[in-house]
Amino acid sequence: VNARWLVNGAAVGVDPADRGLAYGDGVFETMAAVGGTIARLALHLERLDESLTRLAIPCPPRAELEREIATLCPAHGRAVVKLIVTRGSGVRGYAPPPEPRPTRIVSVASWPDYPQQYYRDGIAVHVCALRLGINPALAGLKHLGRLEYVMAHLELRGLGVQQGLLLDTAGLVVGGSSSNVFVAKDGKLVTPAVARCGVSGVMRRAVLAESRELGLHAEERELTLAELLAADEIFMTNAIFGIWPVASVDSQQFVVGPVAQRLLARFGCARGD
Amino acid sequence: VNARWLVNGAAVGVDPADRGLAYGDGVFETMAAVGGTIARLALHLERLDESLTRLAIPCPPRAELEREIATLCPAHGRAVVKLIVTRGSGVRGYAPPPEPRPTRIVSVASWPDYPQQYYRDGIAVHVCALRLGINPALAGLKHLGRLEYVMAHLELRGLGVQQGLLLDTAGLVVGGSSSNVFVAKDGKLVTPAVARCGVSGVMRRAVLAESRELGLHAEERELTLAELLAADEIFMTNAIFGIWPVASVDSQQFVVGPVAQRLLARFGCARGD
Repeated sequence: VNARWLVNGAAVGVDPADRGLAYGDGVFETMAAVGGTIARLALHLERLDESLTRLAIPCPPRAELEREIATLCPAHGRAVVKLIVTRGSGVRGYAPPPEPRPTRIVSVASWPDYPQQYYRDGIAVHVCALRLGINPALAGLKHLGRLEYVMAHLELRGLGVQQGLLLDTAGLVVGGSSSNVFVAKDGKLVTPAVARCGVSGVMRRAVLAESRELGLHAEERELTLAELLAADEIFMTNAIFGIWPVASVDSQQFVVGPVAQRLLARFGCARGD
Repeated sequence: VNARWLVNGAAVGVDPADRGLAYGDGVFETMAAVGGTIARLALHLERLDESLTRLAIPCPPRAELEREIATLCPAHGRAVVKLIVTRGSGVRGYAPPPEPRPTRIVSVASWPDYPQQYYRDGIAVHVCALRLGINPALAGLKHLGRLEYVMAHLELRGLGVQQGLLLDTAGLVVGGSSSNVFVAKDGKLVTPAVARCGVSGVMRRAVLAESRELGLHAEERELTLAELLAADEIFMTNAIFGIWPVASVDSQQFVVGPVAQRLLARFGCARGD
């Protein structure tokens, strides 16, 4: 199959009445395909299942998802494989159909060739003016309504930074503009809780689990901008780039320190293969 | 043309990489087609233009939109015509393409046959537990990320009410679950401001303008639930049903009073033709 995408298993377009398009009524997973397999596929499918449960969308059979992902996953090299699951088509109106028939969309895109220096020397970050709305009902979900993040990216145009830092309307740190954020202080890790805002990233989950393996104390809690700026180290995570140390937040400089280096080594990030 | 939809003028499916689906990166208008014309088309296209400007999405040429809407608008009777404009397809990632090529989607659906009693006797309303997140950057926009509203509708299942009442995370009234809300007190109208939350509905705009024509004092400002419950009258508005008086908010009863009746008459709502 040469298709760059499959909609319910077929290389066709999406129904304009699909609730994913109409209302953002669905979720997605963005996954790293490496040498013919999906990195952390189990974590992705676990989060998908959790998210769909919260939204009362039936989860498509796992075997079907895995087969379609495998169909598009290139046998060699790296690629980005994306899975969208929506509540499917329905009659007009916000009210979900009583028995939704979810739509699954799997697509593949080329691997972004991030410069090695992002991993070695760290990235530049700008604190966005846009504030994320607080909503416990949606917090943690990687749902399809990401317009706040799109608008944050509009702010970053022409600034030459690699990520924005996003705060919520209460002024607390949420994460990067397409990533989660961790800070290290006195050898301990903190990442913002995602109970009121933000996305429960798969790489965030992996880093939390791995930190515990490494004997690093890691906490999920409220994090202020002042605390972040007073940290020893900052790094950002997502499922595609893995871990990026932060070299600067606007005019303030940070070092790529031992905690980030240890996790970078553990995850084998920054290999250009 | 028999198509029930047009995507950029053609009866084809939507690109799975369209940013409207991927990120909710677009807006929509839901319009009443009555006897071959679109009610309040100028207000809809005005709001569309305002919204797209805020999102830095170029507005498709108005003549093109009007032609496609006219193509799908039935010559007789009533129907719902929906227009979606997205930022179009692009490379993966939240960052908008520097020169977006918007996607326009026009579709038509059958007219919902609302019972006459909703107009005459009023509707039943339930205050939803779900709270809307506050975000001035998105407030007022009828953008494609409407998952909060979908989840509010999940709460209404089986309750036998016609609308939910939505509050924001600060506890202020925002509107109905698919409508705006107005209250009348001592002959004066108040509707919640949409600067921090909510949708700037076309029927809301029409009611505000018409109230001024009728010499009714109408204010857009913060509205608490206590104020709403202490009102003489409550009514809800949207572009399809027009105006529905509210007969009850949970266990509290309200009358269909003179202000709602005057506006219902003025707009000719509730004609079953």
